[in-house]
Amino acid sequence: MPAYSLAQLAQQFDLDIHGDPEHQVSGLATLSAAGPSDLGFLANAAYARQLGDCRAGALILTSNMVERWSGNALVTPNPYATWARIAGLMKPRTAAATGIHESAWVDPDAVVDPTAAIGPQCSIAAGCRIGAGAEVGPGCVIEPGAILGDQSRLVGRVFIGENVQIGERVLIHPGAVIGADGFGLALDKGHWLKVPQMGSVRIGNDCEIGANTTIDRGAIEDTVLDEDVRLDNQVQVAHNVHIGAHTAIAGCVGIAGSTRIGRYCMIAGACGIGGHLTICDQVIVTAMSTVLDSIEEPGEYGSGIPARPHARWKRILVRLGQLDDWSRRLRRIENK
Amino acid sequence: MPAYSLAQLAQQFDLDIHGDPEHQVSGLATLSAAGPSDLGFLANAAYARQLGDCRAGALILTSNMVERWSGNALVTPNPYATWARIAGLMKPRTAAATGIHESAWVDPDAVVDPTAAIGPQCSIAAGCRIGAGAEVGPGCVIEPGAILGDQSRLVGRVFIGENVQIGERVLIHPGAVIGADGFGLALDKGHWLKVPQMGSVRIGNDCEIGANTTIDRGAIEDTVLDEDVRLDNQVQVAHNVHIGAHTAIAGCVGIAGSTRIGRYCMIAGACGIGGHLTICDQVIVTAMSTVLDSIEEPGEYGSGIPARPHARWKRILVRLGQLDDWSRRLRRIENK
Amino acid sequence: MPAYSLAQLAQQFDLDIHGDPEHQVSGLATLSAAGPSDLGFLANAAYARQLGDCRAGALILTSNMVERWSGNALVTPNPYATWARIAGLMKPRTAAATGIHESAWVDPDAVVDPTAAIGPQCSIAAGCRIGAGAEVGPGCVIEPGAILGDQSRLVGRVFIGENVQIGERVLIHPGAVIGADGFGLALDKGHWLKVPQMGSVRIGNDCEIGANTTIDRGAIEDTVLDEDVRLDNQVQVAHNVHIGAHTAIAGCVGIAGSTRIGRYCMIAGACGIGGHLTICDQVIVTAMSTVLDSIEEPGEYGSGIPARPHARWKRILVRLGQLDDWSRRLRRIENK
Repeated sequence: MPAYSLAQLAQQFDLDIHGDPEHQVSGLATLSAAGPSDLGFLANAAYARQLGDCRAGALILTSNMVERWSGNALVTPNPYATWARIAGLMKPRTAAATGIHESAWVDPDAVVDPTAAIGPQCSIAAGCRIGAGAEVGPGCVIEPGAILGDQSRLVGRVFIGENVQIGERVLIHPGAVIGADGFGLALDKGHWLKVPQMGSVRIGNDCEIGANTTIDRGAIEDTVLDEDVRLDNQVQVAHNVHIGAHTAIAGCVGIAGSTRIGRYCMIAGACGIGGHLTICDQVIVTAMSTVLDSIEEPGEYGSGIPARPHARWKRILVRLGQLDDWSRRLRRIENK
Repeated sequence: MPAYSLAQLAQQFDLDIHGDPEHQVSGLATLSAAGPSDLGFLANAAYARQLGDCRAGALILTSNMVERWSGNALVTPNPYATWARIAGLMKPRTAAATGIHESAWVDPDAVVDPTAAIGPQCSIAAGCRIGAGAEVGPGCVIEPGAILGDQSRLVGRVFIGENVQIGERVLIHPGAVIGADGFGLALDKGHWLKVPQMGSVRIGNDCEIGANTTIDRGAIEDTVLDEDVRLDNQVQVAHNVHIGAHTAIAGCVGIAGSTRIGRYCMIAGACGIGGHLTICDQVIVTAMSTVLDSIEEPGEYGSGIPARPHARWKRILVRLGQLDDWSRRLRRIENK
Repeated sequence: MPAYSLAQLAQQFDLDIHGDPEHQVSGLATLSAAGPSDLGFLANAAYARQLGDCRAGALILTSNMVERWSGNALVTPNPYATWARIAGLMKPRTAAATGIHESAWVDPDAVVDPTAAIGPQCSIAAGCRIGAGAEVGPGCVIEPGAILGDQSRLVGRVFIGENVQIGERVLIHPGAVIGADGFGLALDKGHWLKVPQMGSVRIGNDCEIGANTTIDRGAIEDTVLDEDVRLDNQVQVAHNVHIGAHTAIAGCVGIAGSTRIGRYCMIAGACGIGGHLTICDQVIVTAMSTVLDSIEEPGEYGSGIPARPHARWKRILVRLGQLDDWSRRLRRIENK
């Protein structure tokens, strides 16, 4: 990594300096691993006790934390965002080589911008449009008529279904499947009849979609992610779901069909969200909760149960089964 | 889309007409989006209030609903199944081009029916048989000795393991992995020893398997899906599981090893089903439930907990921990 | 399969013989399916009642079980491990052909050992090293600088990210994604800012990783699996997680960021493990539990709730909502 003085970083990212502006950093490290030439950060006051042993050449801190740290610091109200920006500067990703790899297959009726990069073993079907600066990593499949916007990147082994529309600066991780059929079935004389899934998927600008996440195409209309939606790995988004801008959803969450999730929501890991619900803006759902009703008020919701020693948990389970009986006993006592 | 008169549709699908038989529809739309040239449907009486504002050229309805709708209608006891059939007619899928794509690799000892379509970047190993009219989409891998039945379709990037047998008219969505090893381990002097997984997977006719779903091969005998089993996305089926005909399983369900699930069961999203269980026919399991005991009676079962405002839920969690104590207090009171 | 006498097997695997040492077995089968030329095993006393009807030519049993079985037996303290070894002998896997398949693409700056096998449609980038005897199955993607150790095997369609290090004798099943970006986001003026994920993933020797499992790269340092860690299908391992040696994790488990799991732990299916926790050695977590606190004592923990008939479960849910009120009522009664 190249070296930067704190003065350079402070100027570029509009930060205050505490300590020696000429101190140079050439590495990025955690509080515990950082040495004199490394830059670190502290975003969460809960870890402030680690400042005592920290040997970092400089830290990104809030002004509140500076007094607890004797070394050099770059001071900002939002250390985590500043860290993200400086890390992007100091350790930039190498862009893939532009052009179409010799082992890729691109249909003659696909339009690939000359500044786009199509990696090895890809398959890009007729009618696709791949935007300027877009990267399609190794082993991706893009089906007929799909659109990948400018500067978007499919990391590798991503599947994009027919006519799916992906905005600009979207990042999709390996194994994601965008635009498989929704799960639509009609029972007809004892057999399941497949209901054609005629909608598509639209992904807004600046979204990120995690590894092995699946987003189904709509039954009639489209499944939609608005701009800046962030999905972690192994999230399942069923047909006709609409996710509002800036909502972030952690790993292993499943969202059933036709549910609308608002803007700036945060869904923690492994939650299940039922179908045909409306969840308003700024809702937080805690880990491993089950949302079965619409939510109309911003705030935090949950139903996850923390694990306990098994013997204690088994007794609670027994008590759960007795609650009905207890209800009657309690009433009987009160009536006396 | 081509246009059809209601008379044509009624004749082809054996429907009653309400209104103008010569009215033409050339599109398919939701109740709220449909215009005068569109056909819509209403399968769920809960949405009947939408009929008032609906501008559809015609709707598929039950006879009960017709009186609440002033426009044209195609009348049938099962509007959803009729919708599925008419959508299939009006918006048919374009079949892939038959033959083997130039970028695919097919082992000389594989047998591919001349009417089958093998897409770009596929790998088909020795001893495979690909049936008449079958489609293998881009990026699929089919390992030695596997069989794909007539008219079956692997949408793309599907993995089919060694000797897996897939019936006819089976549809498998991207990212699915059929026939990975089951999770068989023996602890031996402090190290895990892999137990060879010698069985395979057999998938019956007319099954559908969702995106990124995994079905492991059996340890000794086979993992089996009977005919017309429908699995949504990200379902995990462990080794030696047997799923009965016509059972439908929603997204993110996990089924542990050697469990037998009956016919016509419906498992809602994100349930966990334990291993070595027997679940009888016609069992419904509600969302995010944990099945840990065999089920011998048809009916509905569950253990999912709907989320509440977090503060309220935290109080309930505290109470759960007090139940043991309450039990004693209740008894003490009663003894007085 | 070739035939083996019990004497041969007993000598090779250091077993005692009960019955006829010259009896030959040429097949491997379950207790219920085994015939006179098959070898079976019984590892779990709970299935001992099946011995009565068993027609196997020989069984692998503990000395305790031998008296309940009138046929031939191979006697060992650990029948399951012995079964694993004998199955490996009698039904060995055919290794893939060494060399690079004509349809694979290998960057000239990758180093592939001449005894390694690179399958069809693979993509191996610059700077990769593929060890002696390693197998890279069809459709795998290995990104720049990644290392695959000797005798390791990627079954097919596996994604290995940049600079990921995989030890020796590691087995990774189809659809697994090792080294996608962790889910790191900083909210900055109402938009999410991606936090670069600069760490990598290190997988120790003898690990096994299931189909469609995802292991994210670390944010700054690496995500680490120590030796002999065993992950089933659809497990999600977030950035900076550390999993200790010999720990086994069943399907559909999600582990949030920066959590440390000890050695010899066993996590049952579909559990959720929160972030920034420390779980000590030899912890067992039962199915579909949520771990939200660090665990400092070995033992069994859980919070999964077994499903009940829906009507009964609904009543329990109602009671849960009343517990706060009950608490007051109970106290009021006691105060009288």
